[in-house]
Amino acid sequence: MKKGSAFKVKLLQNLDFGRKKVDKMVHFNCDYSEGAHPKVLEKLIQTNSEQTEGYGEDPYCMTAAQLIKEKCNRQDVDVHFFVGGTQTNLTVISAALRPHQGAITANTGHINVHESGAIEATGHKVLPLPNIDGKITAEQIQNAYNEHFGDDNHEHMVQPKLVYISNPTEIGTIYSKSELTAISEICKKNGLLLYMDGARLGYALCAEDNDLDLPTLARLCDVFYIGATKIGALFGEALVICNDKLKEDFRYIIKQNGGMLAKGRLLGVQFVALFEDDLYFDISKHANKMAMWIKEACIKKGYNFLTASTTNQQFPIMPNVVLKRIKENYEYAFWQKINDDFSAVRFCTSWATDVNDVQKLIAEIDTTAIT
Amino acid sequence: MKKGSAFKVKLLQNLDFGRKKVDKMVHFNCDYSEGAHPKVLEKLIQTNSEQTEGYGEDPYCMTAAQLIKEKCNRQDVDVHFFVGGTQTNLTVISAALRPHQGAITANTGHINVHESGAIEATGHKVLPLPNIDGKITAEQIQNAYNEHFGDDNHEHMVQPKLVYISNPTEIGTIYSKSELTAISEICKKNGLLLYMDGARLGYALCAEDNDLDLPTLARLCDVFYIGATKIGALFGEALVICNDKLKEDFRYIIKQNGGMLAKGRLLGVQFVALFEDDLYFDISKHANKMAMWIKEACIKKGYNFLTASTTNQQFPIMPNVVLKRIKENYEYAFWQKINDDFSAVRFCTSWATDVNDVQKLIAEIDTTAIT
Amino acid sequence: MKKGSAFKVKLLQNLDFGRKKVDKMVHFNCDYSEGAHPKVLEKLIQTNSEQTEGYGEDPYCMTAAQLIKEKCNRQDVDVHFFVGGTQTNLTVISAALRPHQGAITANTGHINVHESGAIEATGHKVLPLPNIDGKITAEQIQNAYNEHFGDDNHEHMVQPKLVYISNPTEIGTIYSKSELTAISEICKKNGLLLYMDGARLGYALCAEDNDLDLPTLARLCDVFYIGATKIGALFGEALVICNDKLKEDFRYIIKQNGGMLAKGRLLGVQFVALFEDDLYFDISKHANKMAMWIKEACIKKGYNFLTASTTNQQFPIMPNVVLKRIKENYEYAFWQKINDDFSAVRFCTSWATDVNDVQKLIAEIDTTAIT
Amino acid sequence: MKKGSAFKVKLLQNLDFGRKKVDKMVHFNCDYSEGAHPKVLEKLIQTNSEQTEGYGEDPYCMTAAQLIKEKCNRQDVDVHFFVGGTQTNLTVISAALRPHQGAITANTGHINVHESGAIEATGHKVLPLPNIDGKITAEQIQNAYNEHFGDDNHEHMVQPKLVYISNPTEIGTIYSKSELTAISEICKKNGLLLYMDGARLGYALCAEDNDLDLPTLARLCDVFYIGATKIGALFGEALVICNDKLKEDFRYIIKQNGGMLAKGRLLGVQFVALFEDDLYFDISKHANKMAMWIKEACIKKGYNFLTASTTNQQFPIMPNVVLKRIKENYEYAFWQKINDDFSAVRFCTSWATDVNDVQKLIAEIDTTAIT
Repeated sequence: MKKGSAFKVKLLQNLDFGRKKVDKMVHFNCDYSEGAHPKVLEKLIQTNSEQTEGYGEDPYCMTAAQLIKEKCNRQDVDVHFFVGGTQTNLTVISAALRPHQGAITANTGHINVHESGAIEATGHKVLPLPNIDGKITAEQIQNAYNEHFGDDNHEHMVQPKLVYISNPTEIGTIYSKSELTAISEICKKNGLLLYMDGARLGYALCAEDNDLDLPTLARLCDVFYIGATKIGALFGEALVICNDKLKEDFRYIIKQNGGMLAKGRLLGVQFVALFEDDLYFDISKHANKMAMWIKEACIKKGYNFLTASTTNQQFPIMPNVVLKRIKENYEYAFWQKINDDFSAVRFCTSWATDVNDVQKLIAEIDTTAIT
Repeated sequence: MKKGSAFKVKLLQNLDFGRKKVDKMVHFNCDYSEGAHPKVLEKLIQTNSEQTEGYGEDPYCMTAAQLIKEKCNRQDVDVHFFVGGTQTNLTVISAALRPHQGAITANTGHINVHESGAIEATGHKVLPLPNIDGKITAEQIQNAYNEHFGDDNHEHMVQPKLVYISNPTEIGTIYSKSELTAISEICKKNGLLLYMDGARLGYALCAEDNDLDLPTLARLCDVFYIGATKIGALFGEALVICNDKLKEDFRYIIKQNGGMLAKGRLLGVQFVALFEDDLYFDISKHANKMAMWIKEACIKKGYNFLTASTTNQQFPIMPNVVLKRIKENYEYAFWQKINDDFSAVRFCTSWATDVNDVQKLIAEIDTTAIT
Repeated sequence: MKKGSAFKVKLLQNLDFGRKKVDKMVHFNCDYSEGAHPKVLEKLIQTNSEQTEGYGEDPYCMTAAQLIKEKCNRQDVDVHFFVGGTQTNLTVISAALRPHQGAITANTGHINVHESGAIEATGHKVLPLPNIDGKITAEQIQNAYNEHFGDDNHEHMVQPKLVYISNPTEIGTIYSKSELTAISEICKKNGLLLYMDGARLGYALCAEDNDLDLPTLARLCDVFYIGATKIGALFGEALVICNDKLKEDFRYIIKQNGGMLAKGRLLGVQFVALFEDDLYFDISKHANKMAMWIKEACIKKGYNFLTASTTNQQFPIMPNVVLKRIKENYEYAFWQKINDDFSAVRFCTSWATDVNDVQKLIAEIDTTAIT
Repeated sequence: MKKGSAFKVKLLQNLDFGRKKVDKMVHFNCDYSEGAHPKVLEKLIQTNSEQTEGYGEDPYCMTAAQLIKEKCNRQDVDVHFFVGGTQTNLTVISAALRPHQGAITANTGHINVHESGAIEATGHKVLPLPNIDGKITAEQIQNAYNEHFGDDNHEHMVQPKLVYISNPTEIGTIYSKSELTAISEICKKNGLLLYMDGARLGYALCAEDNDLDLPTLARLCDVFYIGATKIGALFGEALVICNDKLKEDFRYIIKQNGGMLAKGRLLGVQFVALFEDDLYFDISKHANKMAMWIKEACIKKGYNFLTASTTNQQFPIMPNVVLKRIKENYEYAFWQKINDDFSAVRFCTSWATDVNDVQKLIAEIDTTAIT
């Protein structure tokens, strides 16, 4: 186990943050294709040999938590770090609910469709409501509440207790301040807990039409998380618990669900890197900008969209012949068939998206559409 | 998001794998105080900008799985990668058992004492047997089996179905080939599944008195894991499923329990680094050697030990006055009170343990003992 | 604790199986308002002082199981007795599924709406499909199967594995032999398990348009239950397991879920009473006949129905003014508002429904409608 | 479905509460061999044709609850009725605990050994302490509490939160008022919930050396149940919730676990019969008296006992040759081998035990011992 100059030289030779493609394709299919933003990686390298306590009780986690409290403008919140979103969701819901209680969500909600029954595995029913552009409204929540408690047999049904929303939603749309305020008020009025899944929160908060910020989220939500796996980190989600009732014994529940990282400081270090200089927001803006370029290219060609997304995921409806040509060089995610000639697809940008790649894609969209 | 030479220079300046202590203490209290072995980190840096598929379906995970299959001398095993040990344990047990079945373990087994009820949270009872130096025997397992099925009311009791053993055990001892063979035979005879928790497997396989190897494990166990969180990686455990019955739909269960890492290639990359040149075993040997130095220093002073550990964890019983002096510069883990004057403590070495630090500690043990 | 003649005299004086109403209302709101059919009660009285083994291992349970096997024309099925339907459902599903698997059902299915999350509490997601008159079709099931396995990310979603249907459905309709055969074939083809909830099975099998029977169910279903709580018993459901794969260790799962009745013979005794002379079917026919009388009275008045039920539950859409007058003497269940003037309600008959009560109700329907 | 005099005559002819043995053996092996006490059965017959609301919301359940509240001398407790003990235990513990919390019990506790992992299936670890004559002490509980919270890593272990005790214990011993008071105080001091399993509570409260009563239990316990399955009823346990914190939404949890009996009034009716004239206590005394006769017969012969039970379960240690002869006419439960010549067995009496049968058994013990 040699250290020192010889090793450094070898490392230096290998050090190359430029793209080394595993295949020739440029990936626009998801926002977790690469590793970490160089500044995040750099901080991991710098701190690699330090000895710290395990399980998130190190100075980096404390510093990162403090940075997040400041960004939220609330010192009284609890901050916990997780490796991934499903882990975060199941831990929060498991900690928040009694056995007979369930989580209201849009039917498109991640917990309803893409977590392999993680919530049910903790014993809780997911209670889906029809989504409106990926979102649910305060009125829908109130109606669901009324339907439950208005029924004489409500003890025979799962009690709605927590409202799960994603911002941005799974299909790229965002909640406005007035929408979120209305939901928050309905929740407080009815004793419901409001939980925001922020797997891509940076992309929402940096969208051109966004009017929310972290202090507002910390005021309106009972609990929410700031996702970094898709925004600059190797992995990592920072959970912010605002409601005192949800704080007690939370670390037990993290551990019980296998979510307590032994070298917890890896999470702290990354969040320090992302939040000490607003890197998190800078790279979110970059991704959104790249997404808007793609959006505009599609609009220019007269394509419609599944949703009016202003974040890093765009869902244009494009001719299959065009998509086929694009697919020769670019990965996108097939979303749904529209008709025999058109399909909706997803183009995803991220903190790592290269300006040149987007320009080439746009040119391709432009060219192919002419055909 | 600039890349290129300017960034590289900055990174280089900061690149320093030598120890930067957060505090002045040298940590011997656990084996996950540092980040990753430089070669592991180097490979993460090299591959950082590549675009790959997520969720463990990338080329690095495939290569790492292939390397492990070769080390196990079996091409027909399935290999899955996890972030941590508790996550691995609960996923395996959840996947392997029907609701009424439980897991036999030594009462000192990690799943019985230090996982916050993770196994019970998946619905299964842990069935502890009295440990003998941290281990259980084939005879104990047969007796537990007989007691269950010999009882007319066995349907009123949890059915033993899986045997969980740790190698090395939680207190540093290791299973011999004959012990493991006997356990394996009893398990096969009675339809029990044998699962080995290898959180520190490298330290076991590199112990001076070890006679097991990976091919033997792959033959005797139904499923086991090769732990790297405590041996060179930032995090990571490689699960090897040998029994075909345990393979079906396993990835669903990983996902359901929040264990499917979005950027799964981080696990693949690290295991490639650890296994392409036997780094995993080289650094395990180093840790054991450092532990033996500490052991010998204690023996020289006439100290007894809680267990006859030949791996990286040593549990000497030392005078409290000596421990107090050592504590001024070295972190160890208090284990248990022996009497008013003596305590058992744990000294832990790892792949990262510095030869100089151990020499200083030994000198300190020597000096203090004289006092 | 005196026994003998003195006690008998006292008992005789009190013995009165005629109706003693707790209130003046006649209940048509559900089918479990009374105790047991006199013949069932008689057999419980006769056997009361006998000493038998507990937990369903007594001669009465064996005899009842044998009677049911004969009615099913299959000696190779396993028969287990339960106290209630929710208990039966959760035990079957818990025993049948691995953690990542879910149960397909009509969205109106009892497990989806009226079991307080019992299925989710065992860890499994309920996968609702839109109901068609309370039923689902083979085609819907095939589509759900295809959607799951056709998706590249199916490991991120709950795997459909069991199909739950109720016969009659929760809204009184029944499955035809051709419908059930189609479902059974699709299930077998795709490796899905078919489970029929027969809480009111007698009412289905005795409906005028029914073409199913127990031997056919035993051939087409993997598992189903014959409900008696709503058909003659104090309580009791007889589960018939036809698929060998579902039989192993089933009694453990019953016990684990608190479903193993200490004096199990109470279930055996009741099922002997119901099946030794086809009492079960005789009283089912009676209930259906009473329901048809009510149905015809409504049709005569020109009322529409929510569903074309031919079983003991009728869902007429009636004027609110009429309902109000009926409510003075008769309990019915409000089902849903149709418009400002009309509501759908449920009238339920049972084995215990008195001919005179129905005649009076019909007269009331007739009279009130005139108004 | 004929009713009236013809049926009554037939019923009368069959009405015979005297013993009709299924086999020739007299059962002393358990206390649930027979049906219900005649007065209980009589009340079920009397009320059989009445129409009531389902799910425990009928007048009989209300009356029974009121009777129990009066016996407990507390109007502010909640009373819920269950069909069986395992169902009761799992529902209470599931309702009371958060996911990371566990239940302290004697290692001999029913929840630890004879419920097929029912508690674990709700996600909670059972935390066994070594029993002392089937009991645990306040000191043991305090130590377990201290061990947990005194450990720096307590978040990695299951948090003790509820104390489960059985009275009488599974091996017939009872808690004294001073023992229970000490346990209650320790629980209150440490925020632990105290739950008493009273499957055989009548036998405890009527033991000759008992100094507890229902008002004291209602004062010292947070929740306890009064078992009737083994004391006079066909089935039935009355749960008394004294601690307000445990009351909320309790009926949801009953339903979710399949424990809500459709014809709930069956439970109410039986408990009315048992408690309106203290029948419950009268028959408990009878059973204890019969047990004392057996005990004395054994003492007279110089036999030792496994425990100093003063309740309906006696565990004498008898010569195998004697046991063999007794077994020709009497069922007892084999408990454990003592040595090659002696075994411990259980003789169980109940409300239904016949004086003549006991006298014959005693004579047999006397005779055989001479041999």
